[in-house]
Amino acid sequence: MDYVLHPRSEIKSRIKKLQSSMDDGIDGALLFQAVDMCYFSGTAQDGLVYIPRDGEATVMMRRSLVRAREESPLEVRPLKNMRNLKEELGIKPGATIGLEMDVLPCSFYFRVDRALEDASFVDVAERIKHIRSVKSEFEINLAKQAAQMLIDGFSTVPDHLEEGMTEVELMCSIETEMRLMGHQGSLRFRRFNSIVPLGHIMSGSSAAIPSFLASPTGGKGTSLLFPHGPSRRKIRRNEPVFVDTVGICNGYIADATRIFSLGRIDPELQEAYQASCQIEEAVAREMKPGRTGRELFELSESEGERLGYSEYLGGPEGSKCGFVGHGVGLELDEYPVLAPLDHEIKEGMTIAVEPKIIYPGKGVLGVEDTFLTTSSGVLRLTEMPLEIWEV
Amino acid sequence: MDYVLHPRSEIKSRIKKLQSSMDDGIDGALLFQAVDMCYFSGTAQDGLVYIPRDGEATVMMRRSLVRAREESPLEVRPLKNMRNLKEELGIKPGATIGLEMDVLPCSFYFRVDRALEDASFVDVAERIKHIRSVKSEFEINLAKQAAQMLIDGFSTVPDHLEEGMTEVELMCSIETEMRLMGHQGSLRFRRFNSIVPLGHIMSGSSAAIPSFLASPTGGKGTSLLFPHGPSRRKIRRNEPVFVDTVGICNGYIADATRIFSLGRIDPELQEAYQASCQIEEAVAREMKPGRTGRELFELSESEGERLGYSEYLGGPEGSKCGFVGHGVGLELDEYPVLAPLDHEIKEGMTIAVEPKIIYPGKGVLGVEDTFLTTSSGVLRLTEMPLEIWEV
Repeated sequence: MDYVLHPRSEIKSRIKKLQSSMDDGIDGALLFQAVDMCYFSGTAQDGLVYIPRDGEATVMMRRSLVRAREESPLEVRPLKNMRNLKEELGIKPGATIGLEMDVLPCSFYFRVDRALEDASFVDVAERIKHIRSVKSEFEINLAKQAAQMLIDGFSTVPDHLEEGMTEVELMCSIETEMRLMGHQGSLRFRRFNSIVPLGHIMSGSSAAIPSFLASPTGGKGTSLLFPHGPSRRKIRRNEPVFVDTVGICNGYIADATRIFSLGRIDPELQEAYQASCQIEEAVAREMKPGRTGRELFELSESEGERLGYSEYLGGPEGSKCGFVGHGVGLELDEYPVLAPLDHEIKEGMTIAVEPKIIYPGKGVLGVEDTFLTTSSGVLRLTEMPLEIWEV
Repeated sequence: MDYVLHPRSEIKSRIKKLQSSMDDGIDGALLFQAVDMCYFSGTAQDGLVYIPRDGEATVMMRRSLVRAREESPLEVRPLKNMRNLKEELGIKPGATIGLEMDVLPCSFYFRVDRALEDASFVDVAERIKHIRSVKSEFEINLAKQAAQMLIDGFSTVPDHLEEGMTEVELMCSIETEMRLMGHQGSLRFRRFNSIVPLGHIMSGSSAAIPSFLASPTGGKGTSLLFPHGPSRRKIRRNEPVFVDTVGICNGYIADATRIFSLGRIDPELQEAYQASCQIEEAVAREMKPGRTGRELFELSESEGERLGYSEYLGGPEGSKCGFVGHGVGLELDEYPVLAPLDHEIKEGMTIAVEPKIIYPGKGVLGVEDTFLTTSSGVLRLTEMPLEIWEV
């Protein structure tokens, strides 16, 4: 598996979607974030992409210009500095320009503000996230390959899992397996400050340690500066080994969780895991075009209540994560979010559903799969046995 | 090795340094970036740290409050929302507040601007980077441990290096070795959009592929979305295998590069490597308190010219990286930068010096070490044989 470049038609169709959303008085969108740039131009080198409401997009790259030209199906111009941006992009006096306010550092904002003089700025991050949430055939194909990589990665866990090994050691083994299959080796999270490991692999009570991450699980992590995910805790017999990780194929993510164990785990924990599978099933069954993130989140909550797991579903009181699923694509935290939000489910979304039951001091029991939404229902991309994988 | 928490005296002394810098009319600094927060409070959970010009710092955390309280030696208050920030932080009307403008997303800036009403804002990123560039005994001790981990990591390369393995495979092996020693498993780069692998391990011509990263080397990487570092190219005999990677101990980084080879490499390339070692030696000899980044960069350039490597030192014409060294600490791209900048060398800095000779189509020959500056000269923390490691 090697670099997959974007066909021109793919890029053109994405640009058109953003342009169609600009009927609310925006004259153009000026994008700097690597993932958004790559989405709309086919290259994530260092530069900018300008998409006017009408006409052709402009791609300007500082470094590496050579690589950007190899990667993008669009014309790529050199970017020397931002001072002449107004002329180079043909931005008219008094224009209204969209920026990615959720990720753009202030210093860029001030530089753009000076360069464009009398322009005014609005946030286009929300609309970009909604556009990116609906995947094309090109993207779905890559997501399916990512899912297959993840299935193959999970299938190696029983070969590696041993009593007394650390969580980090198990993580390294699975990571290596997938990186040798072509896994990109780095996971992108959009939210500020959110560095992430390639997976949350934690055992027993360790999995239930809370963290700052917008995720049901935390984990202790390896240092104050990387304070979640696997730690140097040793894996023991008869405890749930929580494996939540991602396949990534040319940037596209598939996300899944299964529980492994060395020997049997406590029947109470087995039951909690069964409940998680039932909640996932209930949410997936209703994840149809027209439904909203809010409805699906409420459904997960009512299923959790019906099964008697309200107290610990999504985290214990005071540290509930507040969502039961999220879109996956080039970033792990994509739209739609299955949370009290009016994110509408549409055909062609890749959504990870992850009801997790978190018992402080005991562990995390939960399943997760990435589903593709279709006109008639969902397709489970990460098709693997749903039982606890007893080794 | 496990979490090392900060002594209260360490945190107090850092806060005092920032406060002492506020005699230019700044009333306080409001910090949100995880690394800066951790530097001044001892925790990198999700929240904020406010440091007024006079008096006690305020640490407010949203998630995980419990962990923040375990980690920080300061009092940690819960952060509910940013609306009452003015009262909660005791910020007076018309105050001038410092923010980390180089990393703070616009959306945070606008939220703070609304919450603090009539406050005005200035950028304090520069002064924070200068403060962080001088390390305490506590930090130097961690940097030394990181350097030892890196030395131990490099010593395993000959056990793993084999003809026909991919660059990614070699990277995974070395990463795993160091992560099992306690390496944090994630490398922080401050600059916008700069995701980084744990090392640049590339072989032959692959090492000379340019990238967007503020680094002498690029490499092809594994996908459009992670377009630098190791790729799936196979390692061959008689070519330079470039290994540039980091040890990390409780967040603190040590950075080094050595060249390995399976069998002999071309004498022309061996000579280039020797030149790189000579340039490193020349720069290190002059890296004394009072010197500037500019002087040291110019020295590397004149040494490069004297030895006949001007054309390819730091990259070929058109893609020169523009620096010959950089501070390392909690982030890879710290101050001082050995570049045409007036960054002054002071006692107690940990600086990676990396003169790299980059031959497009052939490979990269270069050495790198992390040095500690002292009152009388430098100490090489990454003390390893300087020859090409022929396997």
